Amino acid sequence: MNGPKFDAEFLDGLEQLIRWRRDVRRFRTDPVPNELFQAVLALAQLSPSVGNSQPWRIVHVASTAKRAAVKANFEQCNAVALAAQQPSRASDYARLKLQGLDRAPLQLAIFCDRATAQGHGLGSMTMPEALDYSVVTMISILWFAARARGLGLGWVSILDANGIASDLGTPNSYRFIAYLCIGWPEEEHEIPELERSGWQARTDLGRYVVHV
Amino acid sequence: MNGPKFDAEFLDGLEQLIRWRRDVRRFRTDPVPNELFQAVLALAQLSPSVGNSQPWRIVHVASTAKRAAVKANFEQCNAVALAAQQPSRASDYARLKLQGLDRAPLQLAIFCDRATAQGHGLGSMTMPEALDYSVVTMISILWFAARARGLGLGWVSILDANGIASDLGTPNSYRFIAYLCIGWPEEEHEIPELERSGWQARTDLGRYVVHV
Repeated sequence: MNGPKFDAEFLDGLEQLIRWRRDVRRFRTDPVPNELFQAVLALAQLSPSVGNSQPWRIVHVASTAKRAAVKANFEQCNAVALAAQQPSRASDYARLKLQGLDRAPLQLAIFCDRATAQGHGLGSMTMPEALDYSVVTMISILWFAARARGLGLGWVSILDANGIASDLGTPNSYRFIAYLCIGWPEEEHEIPELERSGWQARTDLGRYVVHV
Repeated sequence: MNGPKFDAEFLDGLEQLIRWRRDVRRFRTDPVPNELFQAVLALAQLSPSVGNSQPWRIVHVASTAKRAAVKANFEQCNAVALAAQQPSRASDYARLKLQGLDRAPLQLAIFCDRATAQGHGLGSMTMPEALDYSVVTMISILWFAARARGLGLGWVSILDANGIASDLGTPNSYRFIAYLCIGWPEEEHEIPELERSGWQARTDLGRYVVHV
């Protein structure tokens, strides 16, 4: 069997997608059509996963009460994070826009079912965290599939995982991985917001390869 | 500023790439040109990361001695995993081809520097594992960039993380995330090898969305 060949034009498009996929925190409030969300979700479902376990579990956070609980969780964690900043950076930190919880029309809490029977445990005995990594791989695909359709996604990690699980009432075997804000971006940028704001530019540090 | 628009033809190509990106364990032995690896690595370096921390650290495992150590680590972990299988599945497990360590021309051990100063800790105080997840996001991009150029990638997770770190002599702050085998695939398939072998098919379990 021959696989598809990807031509130079596609590779250019893929590079554009990689370059323009970024974390979005500024959203318009018009809703994401459900058929669009389902199309993106169907592609994400094709993600690789350890043992073909597909351990991702998705909670759509839609109610005002649940969104308020998530926002309160963020505010509390962010206050602690601000207090822990070096004094010279604290005011910069306080000015950063770190999430779009107030406006993002579609909000998903993503969990990993560490106890799933699917896959029969293959590949996750010595490194059970490989299940979590499969969920992150799924999120990466969802991110690209969304961005290619014009949607922005922002990943919120300044959260207390136990608090989120408790607020959303998820089973004990679910491990909280990410909270995703999804919607139409207010602005388009190729440069990450943290770089534009002067917080942290990309560097070459992660590019050095050690040979052994 | 306007971002790029992705047309229907590109979206079709992206779906093909998502469908045909799979875990490869059967490699040809001809080498991966360094300029091709560098092109893929340059795209992976554009991955999102928490706080723009780019915490991925890459060890290219090239020497016979280091590859033998990794293979021995796998053999030991896989024997334990086989012994832990349900009796009814053990012989099926033993028949599976789970890695391409003997033949893959390019092999990378991927770590997360949990102590990196880049990003000034933003976004990883309450969930330090967000740094690991950024590394997985980088791997996802590397995987797509490689596959789009015809390269296959296999992710080996049946490994003892401490043993790998010890064998490769990485700093204490490095957390082992994944061992990647990269090369030209011997065969092309759209269906995952674990599904073709009857171990585990994809299901719809990860597609159900709970609304709260």
